[in-house]
Amino acid sequence: MEMQFMETMVLELGYALDTFYFLMCTALVMWMAAGFAMLESGLVRAKNTVEILNKNALLYGIACIVYLVVGYNIMYPANPVNSVIPGIDFLLGADNSTADVTAGGDDAPYYSAMADFIFQAVFAAATMSIVSGAVAERMKLWPFLVFAVVMVAVIYPVEGYWKWGGGFLYQLGFQDFAGSVVVHMAGAAAALAAVILVGPRKGRYGGNGEVRAIPGANLPLATLGMFILWMGWFGFNGGSELKIANVEEANAVSKIFVNTNAAAAAGMVVAALVARYLFGKTDLTMTINGALAGLVAITAEPLQPSPGVASLIGAVGGVVVVFSVLLMDKLKLDDPVGAVSVHGAAGIWGIFAVLISNPDATFTGQLIGTVATFAWMFIASYIVLLVIRAVMGLRVSAEEEAEGMDLHECGMHAYPEFGPEHVNR
Amino acid sequence: MEMQFMETMVLELGYALDTFYFLMCTALVMWMAAGFAMLESGLVRAKNTVEILNKNALLYGIACIVYLVVGYNIMYPANPVNSVIPGIDFLLGADNSTADVTAGGDDAPYYSAMADFIFQAVFAAATMSIVSGAVAERMKLWPFLVFAVVMVAVIYPVEGYWKWGGGFLYQLGFQDFAGSVVVHMAGAAAALAAVILVGPRKGRYGGNGEVRAIPGANLPLATLGMFILWMGWFGFNGGSELKIANVEEANAVSKIFVNTNAAAAAGMVVAALVARYLFGKTDLTMTINGALAGLVAITAEPLQPSPGVASLIGAVGGVVVVFSVLLMDKLKLDDPVGAVSVHGAAGIWGIFAVLISNPDATFTGQLIGTVATFAWMFIASYIVLLVIRAVMGLRVSAEEEAEGMDLHECGMHAYPEFGPEHVNR
Amino acid sequence: MEMQFMETMVLELGYALDTFYFLMCTALVMWMAAGFAMLESGLVRAKNTVEILNKNALLYGIACIVYLVVGYNIMYPANPVNSVIPGIDFLLGADNSTADVTAGGDDAPYYSAMADFIFQAVFAAATMSIVSGAVAERMKLWPFLVFAVVMVAVIYPVEGYWKWGGGFLYQLGFQDFAGSVVVHMAGAAAALAAVILVGPRKGRYGGNGEVRAIPGANLPLATLGMFILWMGWFGFNGGSELKIANVEEANAVSKIFVNTNAAAAAGMVVAALVARYLFGKTDLTMTINGALAGLVAITAEPLQPSPGVASLIGAVGGVVVVFSVLLMDKLKLDDPVGAVSVHGAAGIWGIFAVLISNPDATFTGQLIGTVATFAWMFIASYIVLLVIRAVMGLRVSAEEEAEGMDLHECGMHAYPEFGPEHVNR
Repeated sequence: MEMQFMETMVLELGYALDTFYFLMCTALVMWMAAGFAMLESGLVRAKNTVEILNKNALLYGIACIVYLVVGYNIMYPANPVNSVIPGIDFLLGADNSTADVTAGGDDAPYYSAMADFIFQAVFAAATMSIVSGAVAERMKLWPFLVFAVVMVAVIYPVEGYWKWGGGFLYQLGFQDFAGSVVVHMAGAAAALAAVILVGPRKGRYGGNGEVRAIPGANLPLATLGMFILWMGWFGFNGGSELKIANVEEANAVSKIFVNTNAAAAAGMVVAALVARYLFGKTDLTMTINGALAGLVAITAEPLQPSPGVASLIGAVGGVVVVFSVLLMDKLKLDDPVGAVSVHGAAGIWGIFAVLISNPDATFTGQLIGTVATFAWMFIASYIVLLVIRAVMGLRVSAEEEAEGMDLHECGMHAYPEFGPEHVNR
Repeated sequence: MEMQFMETMVLELGYALDTFYFLMCTALVMWMAAGFAMLESGLVRAKNTVEILNKNALLYGIACIVYLVVGYNIMYPANPVNSVIPGIDFLLGADNSTADVTAGGDDAPYYSAMADFIFQAVFAAATMSIVSGAVAERMKLWPFLVFAVVMVAVIYPVEGYWKWGGGFLYQLGFQDFAGSVVVHMAGAAAALAAVILVGPRKGRYGGNGEVRAIPGANLPLATLGMFILWMGWFGFNGGSELKIANVEEANAVSKIFVNTNAAAAAGMVVAALVARYLFGKTDLTMTINGALAGLVAITAEPLQPSPGVASLIGAVGGVVVVFSVLLMDKLKLDDPVGAVSVHGAAGIWGIFAVLISNPDATFTGQLIGTVATFAWMFIASYIVLLVIRAVMGLRVSAEEEAEGMDLHECGMHAYPEFGPEHVNR
Repeated sequence: MEMQFMETMVLELGYALDTFYFLMCTALVMWMAAGFAMLESGLVRAKNTVEILNKNALLYGIACIVYLVVGYNIMYPANPVNSVIPGIDFLLGADNSTADVTAGGDDAPYYSAMADFIFQAVFAAATMSIVSGAVAERMKLWPFLVFAVVMVAVIYPVEGYWKWGGGFLYQLGFQDFAGSVVVHMAGAAAALAAVILVGPRKGRYGGNGEVRAIPGANLPLATLGMFILWMGWFGFNGGSELKIANVEEANAVSKIFVNTNAAAAAGMVVAALVARYLFGKTDLTMTINGALAGLVAITAEPLQPSPGVASLIGAVGGVVVVFSVLLMDKLKLDDPVGAVSVHGAAGIWGIFAVLISNPDATFTGQLIGTVATFAWMFIASYIVLLVIRAVMGLRVSAEEEAEGMDLHECGMHAYPEFGPEHVNR
């Protein structure tokens, strides 16, 4: 075998390994769509379960399509207008040529552009998934899906461009490794706009300021959702290193796995302890949300901290989420699954926790990144939702809310044989 | 390090990467067994749930065993009799030697034979899984499992040999990348034979031609099944490229991931829209079956089309499945989960959709492949099922059907504490 | 490109591939935590479901934290005291340097130390998961979690050190590839100690020696748990080869996949047949436990046997588990999910089945390894549990047991809308 040929093979092998790593991480992040679906369908009442399943499934499908058609090109524009306004283009171009790869050098592509696209696409879908839980049990199905089209086609890609596409937040030194803010708080900001516009579920808040618990119908499903999300997060954070095919990168991805897992574990255990201390009971929904908050918190910087520090970052995330859930109810902002607290509050904590371990991060940079992203996501979402409300309406009728969205929107029950309502059928 | 030694290492690395890619894809396809189990157990009534779980679990186990003992050797015979009749052999031989791999050249093996076997085995199990849903709620457990033995040991491997083992369909230029026909329509053809022989569930069709809905007991499970199958399909189609360890192959596998996902997304969204247009409701079972139909449709050619075209192929699959489900009921062919429509109708659409993007495919070739596979699978299954019916019976008694198969066949309830039948216990 | 540089790249690529393989296997084994959670929550009554979900989630979190802080360093000590008593150290050190890797030679590290840690950590968590099911429905939540701290921090790592850390069982030639005894029987021994100390569930055993069935509330979840565990076991056994980046190792990992799958398949089918023969019904819980027993049995040696022999080893595991479950009830040892039988009885069978195919194993070595591990795990767990009982109590009150642990310990129902108890709400 000639030297030249072997050199080509080695470069191709590295490209193949990095691409395969991307694809496996993509499969894991895609799997998070199932995690959100199980989490949310477990935490809503039986009568609204089919509808939330439809929302979760269809939003994933819509996100993949519109991100393919336009969103990806907005987020990573070939010819950006400036550092705030990205360019526009449609569909995907050709993949890298073997010649470009084997030319070597720092500019040579080291993984498939198609793999890059699909990895980014599942991130876009995850961002949208955050919204569905927050407006569960009262926001109409198709207006929600229309919002999903606009959010994944334009709103999310614009702020994604600001940081990951090389826009002004990138230039400013804003540090957000895998998206505590770019994905999670961004989704939570859109969710908050929707929560305000659709209002709380009927009966959630009493006249004298009391908060009435509306228990989820199927807690094993919610727990399964947590485990799915946790597993998927190995791909979410691990894949965001973007490369694995040398010693330094393989070590980095490994450390990200360790830190991601440690933060989730600590967030979960601490949230359970705080809940037990506050309420006298080990509230499973806090256990679940604590793990997710730990994951969100470490997402901004899963590489630099030691595993011990990562655990602390996750643990604080677990504390933050419990108090954020209580605060949301104080403010009469009804979020059935705690999405705004998990992805928003813990995301903000995570973005500032970057300052602990990453010397490139500055307080100002993190603050500007957070404020700019929140403002854009919240205001743009609010305006789009206002338009959708004017045209289609956002909230189901009082009758539909009382009887359940499943029968009205989807024509079926999630569990037609279970429960007392079926005794006299 | 000597040149010779390094050359060996590079060849071995490529072999290891391709083998690892196969094994990860295998794990994903194995996972589809869980997907079928959840999908089907969500779509049947509570009283027949334990039985369908048993069927799904045991058919997977039986498929793996009989494919190991004989099926694999029929499908990929060392010494075929001719292009229609494969040879027979038992169990597996030795794996590739390091010397053979490092000899290099076009004939050198580039991944483990054991990995090849298990990847093929999980395909065989998937084919069988298609049948279980179609005959749910009335076909006896053990006769079904006896059929599974024959189907995976002989019936499926024979037609698999025709195409993938180098038989006459391969020679004819029949194009079916990952098995829209070889796996999916083949399974659907066997399922159709079984559906005809066991007859519809009691009460499904009224005297005046009306179709009575028999709702599934647990729709979150069915949705989970869809997500599992979707995730597993990355391994199903992605692994069918058979190689990833160079730039061209890594790009190919990446494109297959993109196209597979796009087709599923489009099939899902379009089926939901069609259902909403036809029925006025967003029928979750159509959302689910639309995604699966999109996946089945793209399986015949997930590599050549652009992602845009792949989306269209999936979208048409989503339309096809809705009308196929309606047609099946018109014909009084009772298929509780829509397996024949998803895997059969969408599979046929997919095999002809190959003509859009693959210049090597011919209409005649695709037609002959489809007809030959259908005829073989349907007739062979029909005959074997007739024999089983004569010996063991196929259908449970009217009393067992009314009371549920779980208690009679399995001695337990799936959900012993839920539902009104337990109020007076 | 210079020869020297290329040599470095090749060595780095191998390191990256081996590390990536470890990380994917880690994700699969982590996923087993969800498997245990679903299995156990499906097999308990509705009123104790939230509690068992909390146990499964929190034990995983606790295990990851304490194994990070101290357990890993006990199991793989830098400076062991002697071959029975390991040393002690805290947290993790630095990862391998590129220079050490590219120095080459037999001593050069070939995968990330961080990846090694997290792969070991998820094994520790799996060991602890075995205990939770055995004491379901009556052991208090927080005393259980305190036990989890001690077991994963100290008890398990000590016996892990004996074999995998290079202690006296390793020196003795005890053969246990991926932990039929080191993980599974070890967990079962701790579970047995706990089962004895907490006693059977109220009503389980009648005065005249009769055993009353206490059916699980949600069998689809239990089946899902089995499939998750099966999938995860590809990582559990496949990852235990510790290397994949050359032909021999890639073939080895492939064979492990084949054998693991074959043993599970055979264990499942045989257990279902035995149950059908004994009880006249195809008991789904035996189908499930048969698969798991097959997996446990092959875990001690998934590489050496042929796939045919692996199937036989799994099949015997399937027989063993059925009779072990019956025996446990004869002894009035109440194990709601059959954990002691699946992981203990089948684990012991597996460790002696190593003698069939691995010439390095001796009967004496296997016997000493099994007895020493069992004695240590059982006695140490028993003592620690006695202390916890004295301080915190182990068993819930009779009232709490009757009303369900969910309401008392966790303040919520798992399925608040299902079942007759809600008819008059």
